[in-house]
Amino acid sequence: MKISPFAPERLPELPPLKGVRLAAAEAGIRYKNRKDVLFALFPEGTSVAGVLTQSRTRSAPVEWCATQLKAGHARALVVNSGNSNAFTGMRGRDAVEKTVAFAAKAAGCAPEEVFVASTGVIGEPLDPAKFAGVLDRLAGEAVEGGFEDAARAIMTTDTYPKLAMRTAEIGGTTVTLNGIVKGSGMIAPDMATMLGFMFTDAPVAAAALQTLISRHVGGTFNSITVDSDTSTSDTLLLFATGEAAARGAPCIETADDPRLADFSRALHELMHELALLIVKDGEGISKLITVEIEGAETDAAAKRIALSIANSPLVKTAIAGSDANWGRVVAAIGKAGEAADRDRLSIWFGGVQVAREGMRAPDYSEETASAHVRGREIVIRADVGTGGPGRATVWTCDLTEGYIAINADYRS
Amino acid sequence: MKISPFAPERLPELPPLKGVRLAAAEAGIRYKNRKDVLFALFPEGTSVAGVLTQSRTRSAPVEWCATQLKAGHARALVVNSGNSNAFTGMRGRDAVEKTVAFAAKAAGCAPEEVFVASTGVIGEPLDPAKFAGVLDRLAGEAVEGGFEDAARAIMTTDTYPKLAMRTAEIGGTTVTLNGIVKGSGMIAPDMATMLGFMFTDAPVAAAALQTLISRHVGGTFNSITVDSDTSTSDTLLLFATGEAAARGAPCIETADDPRLADFSRALHELMHELALLIVKDGEGISKLITVEIEGAETDAAAKRIALSIANSPLVKTAIAGSDANWGRVVAAIGKAGEAADRDRLSIWFGGVQVAREGMRAPDYSEETASAHVRGREIVIRADVGTGGPGRATVWTCDLTEGYIAINADYRS
Repeated sequence: MKISPFAPERLPELPPLKGVRLAAAEAGIRYKNRKDVLFALFPEGTSVAGVLTQSRTRSAPVEWCATQLKAGHARALVVNSGNSNAFTGMRGRDAVEKTVAFAAKAAGCAPEEVFVASTGVIGEPLDPAKFAGVLDRLAGEAVEGGFEDAARAIMTTDTYPKLAMRTAEIGGTTVTLNGIVKGSGMIAPDMATMLGFMFTDAPVAAAALQTLISRHVGGTFNSITVDSDTSTSDTLLLFATGEAAARGAPCIETADDPRLADFSRALHELMHELALLIVKDGEGISKLITVEIEGAETDAAAKRIALSIANSPLVKTAIAGSDANWGRVVAAIGKAGEAADRDRLSIWFGGVQVAREGMRAPDYSEETASAHVRGREIVIRADVGTGGPGRATVWTCDLTEGYIAINADYRS
Repeated sequence: MKISPFAPERLPELPPLKGVRLAAAEAGIRYKNRKDVLFALFPEGTSVAGVLTQSRTRSAPVEWCATQLKAGHARALVVNSGNSNAFTGMRGRDAVEKTVAFAAKAAGCAPEEVFVASTGVIGEPLDPAKFAGVLDRLAGEAVEGGFEDAARAIMTTDTYPKLAMRTAEIGGTTVTLNGIVKGSGMIAPDMATMLGFMFTDAPVAAAALQTLISRHVGGTFNSITVDSDTSTSDTLLLFATGEAAARGAPCIETADDPRLADFSRALHELMHELALLIVKDGEGISKLITVEIEGAETDAAAKRIALSIANSPLVKTAIAGSDANWGRVVAAIGKAGEAADRDRLSIWFGGVQVAREGMRAPDYSEETASAHVRGREIVIRADVGTGGPGRATVWTCDLTEGYIAINADYRS
């Protein structure tokens, strides 16, 4: 498989987090000769928050996580790639329960403290027996650190492992946030996207974590799209061990505690970076596209317009062909179903204004606009002319023959 | 350009309609060495009805038609391909008015009786001077008949001309309905799609025509999609000369007049055939896909679910690859935002049930499902399990590397 041109030259080295022990193994769920199971173990007192797909056909693991998130305690996480255990009926629920039982025994915790996530083919029964011996063994092998290995174990059509980290100050004590994600196709917003796991030693209560993750997901994971197709399995979880309390960090109970401001900033940055790592590995990507909308009636309207552009096959293929075809941007704005004043509409490609007040800009130069679009990072900006305060930014990739090639024979 | 595998082996021969005179010419608007302007002339007393794009960035010709449809009288129609005169600001409105003036003079009618439609590139100023001499000349050349030539003149990325006809009885007199359309990409429903023109000698008042065309558009033109991208220029017009009154057909004033039942049936069939001709020429098509949804809460919900499947890049690429990947159908149902009961969901590919009650059918055979998908006409059927009466059918095509190739360099 061709590696994305946006793959980082060097993977970041994530520091170990005290008490967060990771191990990965080949369980042979679908792939051969690569690790496809991740087992993460957390110390007592770890709180957890998360966001899950809004799909009406969500997977059995997603339903399990939704139930356990209410209590907000975590001691273990099991992730497998190759089979999403989605649309597998009662057998799927059984598979989750058996997996959780194996994990709880291996981790020495209650089943309710085990989180599970699965990604891969839909509709194929997942055999929980594959986890039986593996999790016991992994519990013995697991060590603090190992994030890169973990990021590799959860990949499907990803062409590179995705990791990022931030630090923040809480009450004068430095805490760390580590994150890993996977995702390349079947990526669309309106929920968390595919699988993402973040880990911190900050002592923050689950309710406060939940408020923060929900607050930041709209402008990060829910503002990216590769192909407008929403997964049945999207799961984003944040685990906080609280270990930094031993180094003097105060325990934070509410999201609006001012001592949490820097942590919130770092979490947003981490989520942004992880979300962008997914777009930059969008199936078949040759160009990264940022769509910025202003002058819409509301932020929500701006986001719908931005997504209409970002999901337009005609816009995405034009960019793939280095064609500054802003007429297709006009059409995508027009079909979004949100207010836009055609006769006050302005559009820019990069810094170049191509349309002003409802028509081609008087000083428009095809050559200047094309120069920007021949680049690798494209910015499409539009003021949709309602005079309203609504604005939004979304990120996507172009649509190339590579996307077709990958998806016309993903299963075969 | 590769001709669609669904191109008809033989084009239907449409009979001349008394008083409907057509002529086409090379005006050099964008294309070289092919006709790109159609001029149609109608006898006095011709009524007209139509549906137009709901795009918020609709073109100047669409706005002109919207205004003139209120009166419902037509004497002429000017269509050009190669330039959509969309997003061209005040210059675009001027271009329409000048074109209309040329046409009205050539046809000897009032400007308000001239209809215009343009298709092609967006945002490029259209020079109305190109129509100046041409329309005068065409008015002299125009003869009854010539529908095939007319269908060719309005093509853009179409790989074959699109024509269909029906006959109907009104009060014991046979009337004829002829139709031509163009469209291949930037095809999505929620309005009329691209350009379609229908002509009949039936004596039916404009208000009744409008009721019928609006009634039938939902299940025909508004139930097709090629790429989910909605045009700025979609225009579907129906012209009725009333000439059949001379042969004894009664003049019909209201859509619910029982004598109009057979005409309504024929109009629906004609619109269905014309709409399917567009899908069958969808950019890059290798397979025709019919999506049938039942068991939704309402017909509108069923249609949204059907379109979610029909517009899913992952479903469309799977079909392109002859992969009976019904898991992607599950995901597309899940993301539609309409009620669906995952655990009562059933899916069929062709006659083969692949999923039942929320999981893979017990007797599922990958081989049998694949056999259907290797064919050229694919039927995806799903009962989404709410127990409601909602049902809908939509038509689309697969997504192939041909679509990318066509659209990555349409302008260059």
